[in-house]
Amino acid sequence: MASWRDPQIAGVRAIMAARRPDPDAPSPSHSERRAAMDAVGEASTLPRGCWHEPVTLGGVKCERITPENAVADRRLLYLHGGGYVMGSPRSHRPLAAWLAVAARARAIVADYRLGPEHRFPAALDDAEAVYRALLDEGAAPERIVVAGDSAGGGLTLALALRLKRSGLPQPAGWFAISPWADLTQSGRSYETKAETDPSLSREALNEYALAYLGGLDAREPEASPVFGDFEGVSPVFIQTGSEEVLLSDSLTLADVLAHAKVDVRLEVWPEMIHVFQAWSGALQAARRAIRVAGEWMEARFEA
Amino acid sequence: MASWRDPQIAGVRAIMAARRPDPDAPSPSHSERRAAMDAVGEASTLPRGCWHEPVTLGGVKCERITPENAVADRRLLYLHGGGYVMGSPRSHRPLAAWLAVAARARAIVADYRLGPEHRFPAALDDAEAVYRALLDEGAAPERIVVAGDSAGGGLTLALALRLKRSGLPQPAGWFAISPWADLTQSGRSYETKAETDPSLSREALNEYALAYLGGLDAREPEASPVFGDFEGVSPVFIQTGSEEVLLSDSLTLADVLAHAKVDVRLEVWPEMIHVFQAWSGALQAARRAIRVAGEWMEARFEA
Repeated sequence: MASWRDPQIAGVRAIMAARRPDPDAPSPSHSERRAAMDAVGEASTLPRGCWHEPVTLGGVKCERITPENAVADRRLLYLHGGGYVMGSPRSHRPLAAWLAVAARARAIVADYRLGPEHRFPAALDDAEAVYRALLDEGAAPERIVVAGDSAGGGLTLALALRLKRSGLPQPAGWFAISPWADLTQSGRSYETKAETDPSLSREALNEYALAYLGGLDAREPEASPVFGDFEGVSPVFIQTGSEEVLLSDSLTLADVLAHAKVDVRLEVWPEMIHVFQAWSGALQAARRAIRVAGEWMEARFEA
Repeated sequence: MASWRDPQIAGVRAIMAARRPDPDAPSPSHSERRAAMDAVGEASTLPRGCWHEPVTLGGVKCERITPENAVADRRLLYLHGGGYVMGSPRSHRPLAAWLAVAARARAIVADYRLGPEHRFPAALDDAEAVYRALLDEGAAPERIVVAGDSAGGGLTLALALRLKRSGLPQPAGWFAISPWADLTQSGRSYETKAETDPSLSREALNEYALAYLGGLDAREPEASPVFGDFEGVSPVFIQTGSEEVLLSDSLTLADVLAHAKVDVRLEVWPEMIHVFQAWSGALQAARRAIRVAGEWMEARFEA
């Protein structure tokens, strides 16, 4: 059993172990999983002085989060995680809100369609529709940062590719937290980090990929952006934990982006787990990572 | 022919092309190459208010650079590049000085022994001797950052491994610029970037590796740190250009470090070339990269 220098991550792991469902219990349905993920988000602390309200953009339901420190013309389009089958503005309201405060920007959290009811590319079509609607309502692309975690981090990079194809202007930057960017699950971290990743496994991700893609080829770049051509894309910032099976997705993305001459910054946070930034109440590392991300986003807004 | 969005890098490339020696001229000797590299360094602008003087540390000749803004107890141990066969405190004085000013630290530039006269591990032995001498004269390891470019960037990571083996305390951090970290020259960027790298090639690096290693196995981790075990090493920051044949060395290092649970940050600067930071008089990107590195080093000194 690994031991951890950071006592806070050991504490988070203990909480996660205690929450783990009985392996003999029947597998939860999609709606049960979604409700559980939403409940975690709704039980987490929001930053003070954040106001949230439902909005519809491009026909897609969204939630708008306005921190009291927001600079008026900055927008953070946030694409939540959940394996393309779970997650919502409720589940990810705290993470999006802490990032919005750090970036001093209003956040738009897209309630994009999920699999298996809505398969690829429904999620990406919705993300593009929201981005287009932001432009239509007068947002300057250089005052938009797109961010997301896990599947939403992959969707963030997929949107970078989609905007190229659609001829839409690039935003100021792309920020991906622990992105799931290779739906073939081929990274070597699936072996090297299998024991230390407390939340994800190849089996679980294969199941999500099947629900999202149906029978489609996972090497499609708009599903697995590691196979995409990123030349001309705005700067990308990736944060990942060293102890997650998706570590290789971030490393491969950095390689692909670098070869495409994209301005890329990658941070690997030692001992940290998948989307550790969501544990900002428990982990100082999460608060530091969010602060660093906020500084990067602020620099992009002002570039 | 590639075209460049950044007009300044196009200008630097034109300067480099004009300087390129006649391919039909006889190959210069090691001493001619060293003199030419020193001359470039001595012709470049130093930051104002920097004072430099020869010192000997651990029996190794060094140059100490003291910027007027230096915080008294901070030390930047700098390991210059030059393929382990060229380079000196003269050639790298400007780069070391600009980094010292950015980090608000005194720099110690080690005049470590070079190949082919002095083969592996002479350079690393000298680097270790200087580090040990800094500790002996009372420097706190948490107030030392070790940095280097190209071969010196590889030597920086090799020193990280050597300190583990010697049982010496780690410094506050390691900063590597365009590190040459795999002396087997196996990265895919040797193919993908062969056309766009104006200064390096597999042939040249094979020649340098032979001069440094003699017949020794290039997979020795203290020569090629990508083969090392970095667990327990202090935080590492890597900056590289997207257009260099050594791009893959940085990407592979990031992978190796991340798997070893090291705090790692990688920045790939689009369109930039090998050790572009040395062109701070010509490139805004070089000045920005040095500023970012300075912020990272300052944070390490104060961590």
